Amino acid sequence: MASTNSTTNGPPNAQLPIAIDLDIDNITEHVINRCSQGRDPRMKFIFERLVTHIHDFARETRLSTDEWRAGLDWLEACGQICTENRKELITVSDILGLSTLVDEIDHPKPPGATQGSILGPFHSLEAEDKLNGDQISCDVNGEPLFVFCTVKDTHGNPIPGARIHVWEADSHGEYDIEKSDRAGPDGRGILRSNEQGEFYFNAITPVPYPILCDGPVGTFFEISGRHQYRPAHMHFMFEKEGFDKLITALYLRGSMYRDSDAVFGVKHSLVVDIHEMDSETATKYNLPHVNKILRYDFVLASDMEADALRDKHSAAVLKALGRDAVLVGHVPTTTS
Amino acid sequence: MASTNSTTNGPPNAQLPIAIDLDIDNITEHVINRCSQGRDPRMKFIFERLVTHIHDFARETRLSTDEWRAGLDWLEACGQICTENRKELITVSDILGLSTLVDEIDHPKPPGATQGSILGPFHSLEAEDKLNGDQISCDVNGEPLFVFCTVKDTHGNPIPGARIHVWEADSHGEYDIEKSDRAGPDGRGILRSNEQGEFYFNAITPVPYPILCDGPVGTFFEISGRHQYRPAHMHFMFEKEGFDKLITALYLRGSMYRDSDAVFGVKHSLVVDIHEMDSETATKYNLPHVNKILRYDFVLASDMEADALRDKHSAAVLKALGRDAVLVGHVPTTTS
Repeated sequence: MASTNSTTNGPPNAQLPIAIDLDIDNITEHVINRCSQGRDPRMKFIFERLVTHIHDFARETRLSTDEWRAGLDWLEACGQICTENRKELITVSDILGLSTLVDEIDHPKPPGATQGSILGPFHSLEAEDKLNGDQISCDVNGEPLFVFCTVKDTHGNPIPGARIHVWEADSHGEYDIEKSDRAGPDGRGILRSNEQGEFYFNAITPVPYPILCDGPVGTFFEISGRHQYRPAHMHFMFEKEGFDKLITALYLRGSMYRDSDAVFGVKHSLVVDIHEMDSETATKYNLPHVNKILRYDFVLASDMEADALRDKHSAAVLKALGRDAVLVGHVPTTTS
Repeated sequence: MASTNSTTNGPPNAQLPIAIDLDIDNITEHVINRCSQGRDPRMKFIFERLVTHIHDFARETRLSTDEWRAGLDWLEACGQICTENRKELITVSDILGLSTLVDEIDHPKPPGATQGSILGPFHSLEAEDKLNGDQISCDVNGEPLFVFCTVKDTHGNPIPGARIHVWEADSHGEYDIEKSDRAGPDGRGILRSNEQGEFYFNAITPVPYPILCDGPVGTFFEISGRHQYRPAHMHFMFEKEGFDKLITALYLRGSMYRDSDAVFGVKHSLVVDIHEMDSETATKYNLPHVNKILRYDFVLASDMEADALRDKHSAAVLKALGRDAVLVGHVPTTTS
């Protein structure tokens, strides 16, 4: 009796070929067929490419049973070490360059727009709203730094009312959510740009720091022989209706590890200088004891600009794949 | 100042190109270079193929930030739900066909050798040693089944002293290690073949069962529209010095889901009939109340036979990749 009886997901699809005697050459097609019975054509496409690449990886490496098991155990350990504030899988994605790649893919930038950089594992929804001029860091050991920025569109028009998340590590390179004894959010805040598209706040000068290596990520660094340091940087995320979300960071020009960031986030256009504070600014913003200033002008891509680029890139990729596929929501999907 | 200072893994490799302005097209090479600083040439090759396929997957799907995050959260959940006796990542590998594929790759079979099948997540090291003729299941609701097997080499010579793990679910399709109230190992045991290469034991007739879907694996089945059932089967694993480990299973011919096993394990050569007990066997092995018998003759590949096939397949794959690589331990590796 063949397997055509009912299950939670309804009866097995009688149109699928019988899946017996699967071997190295024919198994991929069978697994893809089996994963293509859902309703979402985007997920069918994702499963198809996922199964293809996982299988090709095993075929090309001639992956052994012991290596397979070690890999699964390592992935299990990545999940087990996670907590609300420790996101080991994001770090894994970061150190494999996947996070930078996905940001480049999903947030394409037209000429003139500020480039993106990785989100990292330390963005937190717990951040407090801040007013222009507020202090975001209570670390008294940090070097005080005034940050003055603008946010505009690609035509040079100021964008008022943008919601801007900023976050940075403390003077020891540790984020608030890494600390078990923290009283509340620190080293972070959510600002709004004013009518001139300006936003500004007090912070501390960022320092380089190592990625936390007391878990599976540490094992990976050890085996791959890599260093685990990030150059000094400050994170920014911009949200404003009509504009594509910008996730980025600014990197200090002189910082160690700038040329070999462990998570591949640095771009020349995001490398900045910290200058001596000028007296005009110090007076205007009432900053008698702050000696350093960082200035940056951010430029957001509009939704339309980003979508046009997504469509163009997706179409090119599908053409290269030789695929009978269509775009839905600016990303590739299956036709069926 | 460039990043050439000391770190846990020694100074950044000055010979690596500066990793700034990484984009969709150039990031893969940089990440591979960075992952190639370890001492193990096999791991370098594995990392190279892993990074290549993860990146190609993201590029081809135009993976969005939301999809990326959903995928990482799903992987985190897979790790979080794992316990000593629940191995969600093995199940994930099983339902993606990876487990079957890796067994086919790592345990190639010469003509005449018994084919492999997947290990699954329910093998346990807690199993007790059993003698020929022992009962492995204490499930009184199961249909009693006598299992009589032989194990030989590819020339037909009996293999005495082989260590044989057997395991099966109970009459409700549940394994011992799935039960929180279990007293000890049940439905499993470790036997030894006798001088004639025979091993035999009492068990129960296996039944089909669904894969546990109360976790991330269930979400996957839901999205992919697949059923989650396995046909009735019994697991076997053979260990004997000089022979390649054989992980396999026997499947009942009439079982539901035989043609659409949720984990792609069925092979025609592993499909068996359960027969009515014959009086000669019942008398010889003192089984007055057992009405069913399953017979199977297993054939093990020698280490030499398996290694020769590994070398041949690995060389073919490397040739197809156009790679300057060498085999170490019968698997591909890098030359440097």
